[in-house]
Amino acid sequence: MVSQGLISDFERMLGKENVFSSEADLQSYSYDSAVLEPVIPSLVVRPTTTEKLGECVKKLYDNGIPMTVRGAGTNLSGGTIPDRSETVVILTNGLNHILEINSNDLYAVVEPGVITAQFAQAVAEKKLFYPPDPGSQAVSTIGGNIAENAGGLRGLKYGVTKDYVMGVEFFDATGEIVKTGSRTVKCVTGYNLAGMLIQSEGTLGVISKAILKLIPPPKASRAMMAVFDDMQNAAEAVAGIIAAHVLPCTLEFLDNNTIVRVDDFTHSGLPREAGAILLIEVDGHPAQVEDDALAVERVLKENKASAVHIPKDAAEKFKLWEARRMALPVLARCRPTTVLEDATVPRSQIPAMMKAVNEIAAKYKVEVGTFGHAGDGNLHPTFLCDKRNKEEFHRVEMAIDEMFDVAIKLQGTLSGEHGIGTAKSKWMEKETSRGTILFSQRLRRALDPKGLLNPTKLVGI
Amino acid sequence: MVSQGLISDFERMLGKENVFSSEADLQSYSYDSAVLEPVIPSLVVRPTTTEKLGECVKKLYDNGIPMTVRGAGTNLSGGTIPDRSETVVILTNGLNHILEINSNDLYAVVEPGVITAQFAQAVAEKKLFYPPDPGSQAVSTIGGNIAENAGGLRGLKYGVTKDYVMGVEFFDATGEIVKTGSRTVKCVTGYNLAGMLIQSEGTLGVISKAILKLIPPPKASRAMMAVFDDMQNAAEAVAGIIAAHVLPCTLEFLDNNTIVRVDDFTHSGLPREAGAILLIEVDGHPAQVEDDALAVERVLKENKASAVHIPKDAAEKFKLWEARRMALPVLARCRPTTVLEDATVPRSQIPAMMKAVNEIAAKYKVEVGTFGHAGDGNLHPTFLCDKRNKEEFHRVEMAIDEMFDVAIKLQGTLSGEHGIGTAKSKWMEKETSRGTILFSQRLRRALDPKGLLNPTKLVGI
Repeated sequence: MVSQGLISDFERMLGKENVFSSEADLQSYSYDSAVLEPVIPSLVVRPTTTEKLGECVKKLYDNGIPMTVRGAGTNLSGGTIPDRSETVVILTNGLNHILEINSNDLYAVVEPGVITAQFAQAVAEKKLFYPPDPGSQAVSTIGGNIAENAGGLRGLKYGVTKDYVMGVEFFDATGEIVKTGSRTVKCVTGYNLAGMLIQSEGTLGVISKAILKLIPPPKASRAMMAVFDDMQNAAEAVAGIIAAHVLPCTLEFLDNNTIVRVDDFTHSGLPREAGAILLIEVDGHPAQVEDDALAVERVLKENKASAVHIPKDAAEKFKLWEARRMALPVLARCRPTTVLEDATVPRSQIPAMMKAVNEIAAKYKVEVGTFGHAGDGNLHPTFLCDKRNKEEFHRVEMAIDEMFDVAIKLQGTLSGEHGIGTAKSKWMEKETSRGTILFSQRLRRALDPKGLLNPTKLVGI
Repeated sequence: MVSQGLISDFERMLGKENVFSSEADLQSYSYDSAVLEPVIPSLVVRPTTTEKLGECVKKLYDNGIPMTVRGAGTNLSGGTIPDRSETVVILTNGLNHILEINSNDLYAVVEPGVITAQFAQAVAEKKLFYPPDPGSQAVSTIGGNIAENAGGLRGLKYGVTKDYVMGVEFFDATGEIVKTGSRTVKCVTGYNLAGMLIQSEGTLGVISKAILKLIPPPKASRAMMAVFDDMQNAAEAVAGIIAAHVLPCTLEFLDNNTIVRVDDFTHSGLPREAGAILLIEVDGHPAQVEDDALAVERVLKENKASAVHIPKDAAEKFKLWEARRMALPVLARCRPTTVLEDATVPRSQIPAMMKAVNEIAAKYKVEVGTFGHAGDGNLHPTFLCDKRNKEEFHRVEMAIDEMFDVAIKLQGTLSGEHGIGTAKSKWMEKETSRGTILFSQRLRRALDPKGLLNPTKLVGI
C-alpha cells in the first residue's frame, strides 16, 4: 500500500481531483479488456501536463513503487492490468492535447492521451489522413496505440501504428526525458528508440509526446461484400487478391458462426447460409479504384463467390460494415467468457489456418467464431465459453495452444496486433528463441534497474 | 594484435581463403566513405554461412576482441572504420544469398551481404518492387542498409529501409541468436527488436538474416526537369509541391555550383545559368500520374520555373538523371577533400535552410555545392576543401557546426540518412538531450557488456 504521505504528495502535485484512492475508483482500474484476473492497484494518479507526468514517474521510481500506465484500458493481453497490489496506475487521459497538425509538412504532434478517433477526425478536417484504426479507436488513446503497436482494418494497405510514428519523447524509468526521432521524413540521429518503444507495452518508458506521420487521403473508394457457400473458397479468394498484387484498404472475413450470431442480433439480413463473407474496400485515385475493383471481382468469381453486393450508397455500406463492427460485441454476448485470439499467418496460409482453426475447435468441442483482418493474415478466432466451468475452459486453453502451434508452423505469429502482456508470454519462446527472451530481459533490466515499469508484462523482468 | 593461435582457429573455422592478415589486406579495410582517419584492423575474417558468422562473433567475444562488421564500407559517417588496432573486421560479403522471394505474400528473406541493387533487380524480375535506393546501391549491402537505415531518392513517397524490414535474425554480442519480427504483415510478439537494430550501426547485434517487405510496382511514371533562375524559388516550389499534397517518388535539387561542376565534366548541356534545377518524377496508376504531373507543373509555374523539360524517352531521362547521379563524384574531383553533409529539415523549411547554407558558406569563405533529396527535406551540402590546409578545414568545421545549429532550430536533424558513426556523435546531445545519451549508453552496455561491438560508434560505450 502507498503511504498517506505519498498520497498527500501526489495531491499537492496533481490536485486532489487527480488522485484516486477510493475502493470504487481502484476497482475501476483493476482490469482491462483481456480475460484475466483483476488486480486492484494501490492508487491511481492523473497528471494533466507532461511535466507532471515526468514528476509522477520520478516520484514512484524514487519510492520503489511499480507503475502501470493506462490510456483507455482497451488492450486485449493484460498490458494495463496492475502487476500487484502495490502498483500505482498512471492515467494519461489528462494529457489529451493535439499540439500541432502541420498540413505543409504532413505530420502532427500529440500528447499520449489523445483519443485515436478524435485525432483522426481532426486530421480529416485538415484534409489529411491518419490511417491506423484499431477496433477500439472510439476510446483508445494514441499513447496506448504506440505502446501496443495497435493495428486495425487498414493494416494491409496502410500499415499499423508503427508505420506512422516519426518520433517520441518519453520518460525513462527514473523520470529523465528522452527524445528520439524528428519532424523530418528521414532521421538517423542516434538509436531508433521510437521503434524500440513501439509495442513495448509500458515496460521501457512512459510516452509523453508523439510525432505522427500524416498522408494525403485517397480520393475515391469502393466497397463490396462477397458471399461464399464454402468458407475455404473465401480464404482462397483472400490469398488470390494479394497474389494478384491488389492491396485493398480493407479485406475482412466473417465465418458462418459469426454471421449467424450477428444477424440474430441485428436482423440486418445477412446471408445466414453463407460459409463466409468478405467485406472488401479498395481506395485511391478513381481510375485505380476502378481497375482494382474489377481485379478483385475477377478473383472473387474465380473462387466461386456466390454473390457480390456493391452498396448503393454510404448508408448501405455502413449497414454492411456494421456486421464487422458488431462481430466482437455480439459474440461476446453469447457466453459468459469471450477469448478473442489474434493468430496471424502469411496471407497465402489463410486457407490452411482457417481449416486448422475449425478442426481444432471440433477436436476440443469448443465453440469458435472467426472474423478478422484476413487481408493481412490477421484472424481473430473467438472462443465462446464459461471460465467458471474449469473443464470447458481447459479445453479452450488446449485448443488455443494447438492453434498457436499451427500458426507458428505456417510461419505466422502468436500475436498480430493484441500484444503479449501477461496473456501470451508463456508462448513467446516457442516463436522466437531462448536467446531472444534473455536478450529482451537484459534490455529491460538495463533500462529499468528497479523493475518498476509494468514488471510482469511481455517478458518478466 | 590477435595471436597466431586465434588466426589459426579462424583459418580452421572459415578456410584460409577467408582469413586476411597481410598488410595490404588490412589497409583495404582501414577506412570507409567518411572523411576520417583510417585505422588498420588486426585481422579480417569472412564467414560464408550464417552459422559461421555466429561462431566468429562468439569467438571474438570470448576472447575480448572488438569487432566491426562491414558490408561494402560505403557509409558516410565512419561506422565501418575499425575502432582501434585490435579490432577484427567481419566481412558479410560471403553471406550473399537471397533465400526467398515470395510473390504471393509480398516479402523476401535475404542474408546480410546481398547487394542492394542486385536484390532490387531480382525482385523486379518477379514483378515486385523493393523501393529503398541509397546512392551506393550498386555496391551497398542489405545488412549495411539496415544497420544504417539507409535512405535514398524515393524516401519521400516510399520511405526508407526501416519501412521495409519486417523481421531480422541477429547474433547478440555473445553470439546467441535472437529472432524478431515475422513473415506476417502484423506482428507484435515481443519487443520490436528489429526496429531497435535498424540504424544501430553495428553496436547492438550482428544481423544474419532479414525479412523484407515488397510491394506491387507502380504501373506508370513521368519525369521532368524544372529550371529556376533563383534558387529560392526552387526551394519554395519543393515546399509547395508537398503542401499541395502531391508525393512525387523523386524530388531532387541541384544548386548552381553543382550544375556547373557537373556540366564541366559531362558536357551534357545542363542549364549553367540556372540558380537551381529540380528533377521530379511522379509514379502510380497512369491516371494518377497524369493528375500529379499537372499539379506539379502548376506549382512549378507559380514558383517562377523558367522552363520545365519533359524527357521524350528513357534515354533522355537517363541523361537528365545522370546530372544527379554525377553530383557527388564530380564535386569530389574538384578539391582534395569532400565533406558530404546530411542536414535535414521539415520540407517547408527548405527555403530557409538553403538560404542559411549559402550565407554560412559565404561567412566562412568555404566552397559548397548543395544537392539532395529536397522532397523529404534531406539536403546534402557538400563542402569542397583540402584537409591538409588546417586553417581552411577549420573554417569548414565551423561552417558545419553553424549549419547544424540552423537545422535544429528549424526543427530538423543532424543526419537524415548518413548516420552518426564517429563523425557526428559530438553533436548528438544538442539535438536530443543528456538523458537520451545516457539512456542509449545504458542500452548498449546492457546488450554488449564487454563493449566489443563497434564500441566508439554512435554513442561511445
